[in-house]
Amino acid sequence: MNLLEALNWRYAAKRMNGQAIEAEKLNNILEATRLSASSMGLQPYTVLVVENSAMRQQIFEKACKQPQVIEGSHVLVFAAWADVTEQQVDDYLSRIQEVRGVPAESLADFRKAMLGGVVATKSPEERFQWAARQAYIALGTALTAAAVEQVDATPMEGFNPAALDELLNLSAQGLRSVSLLALGYRDAANDFLASAQKVRRAKEKFFVQI
Amino acid sequence: MNLLEALNWRYAAKRMNGQAIEAEKLNNILEATRLSASSMGLQPYTVLVVENSAMRQQIFEKACKQPQVIEGSHVLVFAAWADVTEQQVDDYLSRIQEVRGVPAESLADFRKAMLGGVVATKSPEERFQWAARQAYIALGTALTAAAVEQVDATPMEGFNPAALDELLNLSAQGLRSVSLLALGYRDAANDFLASAQKVRRAKEKFFVQI
Repeated sequence: MNLLEALNWRYAAKRMNGQAIEAEKLNNILEATRLSASSMGLQPYTVLVVENSAMRQQIFEKACKQPQVIEGSHVLVFAAWADVTEQQVDDYLSRIQEVRGVPAESLADFRKAMLGGVVATKSPEERFQWAARQAYIALGTALTAAAVEQVDATPMEGFNPAALDELLNLSAQGLRSVSLLALGYRDAANDFLASAQKVRRAKEKFFVQI
Repeated sequence: MNLLEALNWRYAAKRMNGQAIEAEKLNNILEATRLSASSMGLQPYTVLVVENSAMRQQIFEKACKQPQVIEGSHVLVFAAWADVTEQQVDDYLSRIQEVRGVPAESLADFRKAMLGGVVATKSPEERFQWAARQAYIALGTALTAAAVEQVDATPMEGFNPAALDELLNLSAQGLRSVSLLALGYRDAANDFLASAQKVRRAKEKFFVQI
């Protein structure tokens, strides 16, 4: 199954059958998420991987009781940085030095560009919105990777962010939940959408060719 | 090359070599973008596919003269809906009726949920930010598809949105540019990043296991 076949196969399952996804498939989806493109490579978000049933039951309560949270085997919580600080940029620059074995001086221009582009010229709310968008790139990557692994993945924005942040103690970690992604296997017999045709805007309306 | 190998191969090329990407590869990347997951399937964005050299030269001027815009062969402009209106929701519902052959009445609850979840309870700015995040899911899908096609893809937020919107007449179409994606082939000889090791946060720091 090539990528387009995988994307045609996928849909946001409304019901899942309780079957757990295999460790290798989960690892591949997570690794794809970690490798996702991110502006300047900063990755201003953390991904919580929730397998624990009791915790998923509690998330379920904060997420409009959407059954996939408990009928799947894992829920990913995409949590964007509540702010982007100079310290976080410097932590990232340290990571570059460590991985590439380059001196801090070689990154001075890059540091200036990052601080100027993201930290200094944006308000705290704008920095969070920017971090949230970056998390959504990773969400798109995770969704695509799940389709390739033939794992069902349902993204969810229907939850109470304040309640979820409190449950997962995210504020104390400088994080804010922006999206959930339930992982599992579709329960085709109980989900009429499993057999419904995919609806996307026609090419002529979705693209503008210049 | 599997998906993880493709994601490890990709990076945001800073220089491209002028070689045009093949029509089939472009089509696959675009089709993946069109099939991308989107909240409730709404796809609140349009993708402009700019091949025209003169237009890319003008975009280059509005995008901090980043060379990939003219050294690649195509630039995708991800333009989110400036607002999300009841009319747009109804257009989408008409599309569902057309594709699935279902009556409008069968979508009444879904219509109510969409209007309640996206239109009625959000401010115009929140609706735009929501649409922008959806566009970023598609951006993540496009980036992943390009990697699978072994096409270099550089996402860019470094541009003047107001100037670009004016150049492309986006406001009149109810759109606002949120990201560019240059497509082409890396110029490894002139881009030191082509051989630099990828830097991503370590798994233990990027994921929280619960």
